[in-house]
Amino acid sequence: MEVMEAIKKRRSIRSYLDKPVEEEKLKRILEAGRLAPSAKNLQEWRFIIVRDKTTREKIMQAAKGQRFVSEAPVVIVACAVNTDYKMTCGQYAYPIDVAIALAQISLKAVEEGLGTCWIGAFYEDKVKEILAIPNEVRVVELMTLGYPKGIPQPTERKKWEEIVCYEKWKF
Amino acid sequence: MEVMEAIKKRRSIRSYLDKPVEEEKLKRILEAGRLAPSAKNLQEWRFIIVRDKTTREKIMQAAKGQRFVSEAPVVIVACAVNTDYKMTCGQYAYPIDVAIALAQISLKAVEEGLGTCWIGAFYEDKVKEILAIPNEVRVVELMTLGYPKGIPQPTERKKWEEIVCYEKWKF
Repeated sequence: MEVMEAIKKRRSIRSYLDKPVEEEKLKRILEAGRLAPSAKNLQEWRFIIVRDKTTREKIMQAAKGQRFVSEAPVVIVACAVNTDYKMTCGQYAYPIDVAIALAQISLKAVEEGLGTCWIGAFYEDKVKEILAIPNEVRVVELMTLGYPKGIPQPTERKKWEEIVCYEKWKF
Repeated sequence: MEVMEAIKKRRSIRSYLDKPVEEEKLKRILEAGRLAPSAKNLQEWRFIIVRDKTTREKIMQAAKGQRFVSEAPVVIVACAVNTDYKMTCGQYAYPIDVAIALAQISLKAVEEGLGTCWIGAFYEDKVKEILAIPNEVRVVELMTLGYPKGIPQPTERKKWEEIVCYEKWKF
């Protein structure tokens, strides 16, 4: 699938078929994350793949009861180690690096006929407790993965001129 | 180009040909960013496209004198508005959302035969001064864009088992 087609087809999928994700597909999808760039090549991302139903239900509770979180056959728990590196621009590298890896994972999932959803609405301390994640590690995002039950309409986007300008700030 | 091919071909390009980026290509590349997902569909990204040589040289100085920043025919200055929204997980949404958009831009650039480089090593206050960016706006990353002069070897990646585990934290 072409890059632009995957970008256009990607949706936030909040309803999944009761169908497991093949191990080979999962591996190819995570490989897309493994190859992402990161600040100083830190690769501070760590991915916990949760397929156990009981664990998924616990994570669903930690994610404010969002039902699709346990419905999805796979939850990718995207963590970061080495979370103290701040770039000169003032941003911590780790949320950006984890986001790049997940963005690549998300597009590769579309290429494999699968759907994903980014989840930032969860209690980090509860997720850490459920998965025995050490204190110093951050859980940056959860991402559900599975076969979509349906494909929602695209959400609205701002117009080009609302987000792009030339040569200096003109918004 | 297939998604996985773009992911595998992507490099951090730090040397560019003296050849402008066609407006139509630039538009398709930025469209890949416009279509990115964001927390609560905030779309808080704003992109300033810098092509003016004098401005690029100023930005190069603000980016610690990294020569390729002015060599690239285009510098995308990736900003964020609405920077106060923090997700339940404790992360600010804006660096993550801007990173997703830039990740899509970066892969679409590969599909168009172009190269990019993520730059976090810059003085935000200087970039804001050069481009008249308001105080409350954050400059999250710079990204150079242009035709690569050469394709560097891939940098090393951690092994699969160093970054992926199953069911609970096992690193």
